[in-house]
This record gives sequence, C-alpha cells and structure tokens, in this order.
Amino acid sequence: MDNNEESLALHEAKKGKISVESKVSIDTRKNLGLAYTPGVAEPCRKIAENPSDVYRYTSKGNLVAVITDGTAVLGLGDIGPEASMPVMEGKAILFKEFAGINAFPVCLDTKDSQKIIQTIKNISPTFGGINLEDISSPRCFEIEKRLDDLLPIPVFHDDQHGTAIVVTAGILNSLRLIGKKIGDLRVVLNGPGAAGTAIIYLLMQMGVKDIIVCDENGILADNRIIPLDPHKKNLMEKTNPRGIQGYLSEALKDADVFIGVSIGRIVSKEMIESMANDPIVFAMANPVPEIMYEDAKKAGVRIMGTGRSDSPNQINNVLVFPGIFKGALSVRASTINHEMKIAAAYAIADMVQDEELSEEYIIPDALNKAVVEKVAQYVAQAAKETGVNQI
Amino acid sequence: MDNNEESLALHEAKKGKISVESKVSIDTRKNLGLAYTPGVAEPCRKIAENPSDVYRYTSKGNLVAVITDGTAVLGLGDIGPEASMPVMEGKAILFKEFAGINAFPVCLDTKDSQKIIQTIKNISPTFGGINLEDISSPRCFEIEKRLDDLLPIPVFHDDQHGTAIVVTAGILNSLRLIGKKIGDLRVVLNGPGAAGTAIIYLLMQMGVKDIIVCDENGILADNRIIPLDPHKKNLMEKTNPRGIQGYLSEALKDADVFIGVSIGRIVSKEMIESMANDPIVFAMANPVPEIMYEDAKKAGVRIMGTGRSDSPNQINNVLVFPGIFKGALSVRASTINHEMKIAAAYAIADMVQDEELSEEYIIPDALNKAVVEKVAQYVAQAAKETGVNQI
Repeated sequence: MDNNEESLALHEAKKGKISVESKVSIDTRKNLGLAYTPGVAEPCRKIAENPSDVYRYTSKGNLVAVITDGTAVLGLGDIGPEASMPVMEGKAILFKEFAGINAFPVCLDTKDSQKIIQTIKNISPTFGGINLEDISSPRCFEIEKRLDDLLPIPVFHDDQHGTAIVVTAGILNSLRLIGKKIGDLRVVLNGPGAAGTAIIYLLMQMGVKDIIVCDENGILADNRIIPLDPHKKNLMEKTNPRGIQGYLSEALKDADVFIGVSIGRIVSKEMIESMANDPIVFAMANPVPEIMYEDAKKAGVRIMGTGRSDSPNQINNVLVFPGIFKGALSVRASTINHEMKIAAAYAIADMVQDEELSEEYIIPDALNKAVVEKVAQYVAQAAKETGVNQI
Repeated sequence: MDNNEESLALHEAKKGKISVESKVSIDTRKNLGLAYTPGVAEPCRKIAENPSDVYRYTSKGNLVAVITDGTAVLGLGDIGPEASMPVMEGKAILFKEFAGINAFPVCLDTKDSQKIIQTIKNISPTFGGINLEDISSPRCFEIEKRLDDLLPIPVFHDDQHGTAIVVTAGILNSLRLIGKKIGDLRVVLNGPGAAGTAIIYLLMQMGVKDIIVCDENGILADNRIIPLDPHKKNLMEKTNPRGIQGYLSEALKDADVFIGVSIGRIVSKEMIESMANDPIVFAMANPVPEIMYEDAKKAGVRIMGTGRSDSPNQINNVLVFPGIFKGALSVRASTINHEMKIAAAYAIADMVQDEELSEEYIIPDALNKAVVEKVAQYVAQAAKETGVNQI
C-alpha cells in the first residue's frame, strides 16, 4: 500500500479520528447523580450567578473549535465542509497530542462571511478559543478580524499566522547566522493570500521596512496594468517603498530574502543569482516548492526552508498553534495580539541553541514537544505584559 | 459534603466532564503523515468525489451535537448558554456511556428561533445527528420541525420526545396489567409544554381518542376566559372531544389516566377519587410531583410513575435517547419519525417480561443497558420499514 491507500485504510478502519470521552465515572446511581441530575444543577447555578465560573466547572477553558468552511483545504481548494472533515479532525488530534488541548472540528455549511461570523459567535459559549482553518483569502481577513472584535476569547486563523510565525522565527535565526540586521533587509514575498499577508504584517511589526509583494501578475505597484482588488491595493500602499515595477524577477534583484507562498517552480537559478549576498529563501509552495532545495543551494542560496519534511528547515504550523493556544488559554487571554505572535516567533527561534544553529537547522524539529512549552510560556508572558490576560 | 457540594467539587477537580481524544497514533512522522498531511488529503478527495464517503472516513456517522440555548435548563429555567454547559456535558457523557455515541455540547449565544435554526444548519456537516436540549416551549416546536425539514440527518428534541416515549411505554405496560384498551382511554394531561405536547401527539398516534389538556388556567376549551396562544389553540382544536370546560378537577372526573408535566402538589386525594377505576398517574413534576407517591396510592391510584429515582416506575429519558440515536445512526436515518418513536416505546415496554410486570415495575430500570440495544434494534427496523434509512 502506498501512503494514500494506507491513509484511506486507517480512516476507514477507525471511522474518523476523534472520540469524545467522559472524564468522570457514571456507572452507579450515585455517580450519575453527581455528573448529571440532580447534582449537575449546582454548577449550573454557580455559573448563572458568576459567569466566569464556567471556566471553573466546565470544559470550556481547555476547549478549542477548529472551524472551516472548506474553501481552502490543503492544496485541494474549495472542497466543501464534509470533505474537509478529515483535515479538521487531524488538526483536532494534533491539538491534543501536542498541547493537551481538547479540540473539536466544526465544518460550516456556508461560505458567506457574515453568516460564518454569526454562526461562530453563536456557538462560541462552548469554547475557550477559536482556531479558524482553511478559509480562503481575502474572506479570512474580515472573518478573523470581526470575530476577534466580537468575542471575549482568542480567535486565530492558523493558515495566516501559524505560517507567519514560523517564517519569522526562521528569519530571526537566519540573521543570527549571517549577521544582517532585520531593519536593513530587502524582502520579496510572492503570493499575498492568507499566509502571505500575515507574513507581511508580522515582518513589518518586527521592523522590516522594505517588502516587495508579487502576485501572479507581478509586483503590487502603482500603474500596474492588471488592476488590484481592495485587499492587494491596501497591501501595495504599505509596501514597495522604492516603487519597483515589473515581475518577480525585477523584485528579486538585490533582495536579501525571498518568501514564496504561491506555486511550484516559479523561481529560476538566474533569479536567485540576482539576489544579494547570503540569500535566504523560504519556498513554501506544497508539495512542489517555488524552487527545489537542491537547485536553490546550487544557485547560491545560503539558508533555505520549505514546507516539506524531507528538506532541512521545515516550516510547519504544528510548531505554533498548540503552544500559542496553550499559552493564551493558560492566562485566559481575550485575544492573540501582535506581541503574542512575536513572542511565539522568538520562542521557536530560541529553541535552537547557538551550538546547534546551522544553515540546515534554523528551525526546531516539528515533533519536538518542548517547543510547545516554550511557545506557551512566552505567549502567556506577552499576554500579561500587554494586559489582555483575564486571570 | 452534601450532594451539591460533592457535585461542585467533582466538576472543579475535573474541569468539566468531556475530553476529545485521538483514536489514532500520531507519535511518529509516518503516523503523522497518515492522519494529517500529506496522507489526509486522500480521504478528503474521496469525500469530495462522493459525499456519502464522509460516513466512511470521518467521525460524522457516530457524532451527535447536544445543542441548547439555555432557556429551559432542568428546573432552573433561562440560565443562559454558559450556565447550561454542565448539563450538556453531562448529556454528552450519557450518550457515550449508554450508546457508545460521541456527543458534543453546543451552547448557543442566541434565543432567536431563526438564528438558532440557521446556526444549527450551518454547523450540521460535522454531525450525524442533532439532539436539541432544554429549549423553551413553544419555540422548541418550530425549531425542531424546521431543522428536521432542512437537514438530511435526524433531529430530536429530547425534552419533548424522550419523556413522551417513556410515558407511552408506561401506559402500554399499564394496559397489560389492567386490561383496558388504548382506544377507550380517557387521558388528562396537565402542562402542554415541550414534553406535554409531545406526549399528546404520541398518544394520539397510538390511538388515544379522548385527551383533555389543562394549563394553569384550566382546560383548553372553547370560550375560555383566559385566551389561548396559537400553540394552545391548536392543541385545543385537536383534543377535548367531549367539550368539557372548567379546571383540572373537572377534567379528571372519570379519567383513566392523569399525566402531569407541570408543578408539584396540584392534584388532591379527592381529584384522584373522582377518576375511573384503576387510575393510572404519571406525575412528573420535578423534584416534587403533582401528587406524592404515598398520597396517590392511598387515594386509590393503581399504577403510578414519577420523575424520581426513589419511587417505583421512574420516567427517565436515558431509557430513550441513547437507543433512539443508536438505532437511527445505525441505518443512517434521515429523520426520527412517529413510527420510530412508537417503536422505541414498544421496545422499552417489551423490556419488562410478563413475569416481572407489576404495578411497581412497568418501566425498566434506567441503568439497564440492555434497553439501549432493544430500542436501537426496534428503531432501526421502523426506520427501514418506513423507508427513511439511507443504508
């Protein structure tokens, strides 16, 4: 059996990957009367009197919804809510495995942003946090923003920020190796979708001043022949300070960093050779990166990361979401703000000791569970320092 | 510690009662690649090609949402979504304990019927069935009806039908003892709320022709001084064939059966004495029944059921909902129709053997898990016979 067949067989044998289990025994009348009627009325009364007691007597405080509308699932695109269920269940079990967080898949039967927002708000009392997943760009930006404003619990679109935080950690550690300063970097990003946009904003927060953004029609710039939608127009106004025009190949001349969240094999050897010294490349198109690892290294790339587990420096969201939610839930943060995201990036970067740091190891291993603890600790601290913690 | 204190301590120590667990191992890169990317893409593709494969490769087929708006929780009334969470978690673990069904609490931040319907429709792709819980009457009727029409999965408001099915089972077994025919019975029901209304309709389906319904202002009848809301006007038009007017005491004269889903201590010894021979009483107000067990027996009640576990013949919904969902899910029923509810009532009644049947034992023990199997079997059979099964 190949990997696909084996995956199918596993999913069919288990009939899905999650199980809702009881933490209490209800095998006797006595126990039943404590966990259910009549005893259960007492925690209900306490919560009715003091709403924050819901964190004391229920599962809410350690329960995260993994919510999608099925519009941007893996590399598969808009496959609908039912077909996205295996991914959401997979995400849910990663939450448990890596952070001990109970997570539950919610696959939505609507693609309308306002209905998505309203539905999530309506089911939010059950949850301590909301992890948005695989919702297509640019709808994902408004959905996350509105929900974050509306709800007293953290809302986090992992496709955006998970990737952005790992890339930022990768850049921080690259700079430890090559000695450039973050404020001096020229960065080119190709693919301003969910992840790309979040990367742009997070790098700006980190002090990057010169970012050029490209889409399939070239650099986001004034006077471009193909017009920009409002989302890209907004990005254009905040980027490209030197007003470069043209295609990706123009943008890459003298660039220090290339970040690809786009499609495979669009960066040539020549384009890499036109970059500044010690080029840093994060080519995260999946499964085929914007330039293959070996080609990039041959063309002179000093530090390379991809989305793949078979090359060094895998950019994997599992380094982020378990720890960032664990940290946010631990202090009952009302949001996951920029400072908490930056703290998560530093935590991931700090997991690589000086003596371990190399061009092939700027990002810790995705299966290293110590990362979760460090991220959670840094994130909780940042929440407290910015006053968004509620305990 | 009394029961309330012990319940609080248990809820606090466990921080809620449910846990979302993984059924698959993801401790190695290989396993991770089967349960999550890249392997997980394959079941996604299969479901996108053939939607019913969601039952084959995901948890949907054995996953029930336990959904409330917190408006009619236990005897506590409208305590809101957060305060209802302990009850919904309790219900969820009963589903697991009794039927092996994964169930998940969803507490809604809206009391608007249309928003509730839309929200539940929007989250329905995740679930194989919807158990509505503790939603106040008369809103619950429209919500259940609309959702049942909209969704291809079973929708069941347990407060309505759970009680109705157990009461029906109790009446069936009472008739085995006293020899009256169901079509000849005169039935009086006090309290036409969620449970009361469902009992009325189910008994009519069973062949009861003479039902008088009372509320706190007396018999639902033409020319009543206190006007009837549309729900009660509708009930009035379908009941009270002899056109009796007045209060509960009038209704009870020569009645064979009294069913109370109302408030404690409203039925007197004299009212019982005015009933027909061999009176049957289901006095289910909680915790204090419409007439206390001892008083009822002294006044001549032959068969008595209550909601309490310390009297014989406890009317307990746990006899119904695990089995009815297990049966419905087992054949992928699109709905839970009258025939399936009646089948559940017969299954519960049939659990009491002739040699066990007595005035003190017309309903099987709530903790007897063999009931679940029998109910599931009868319900699945009824679903097939009425063609609502999808496998």
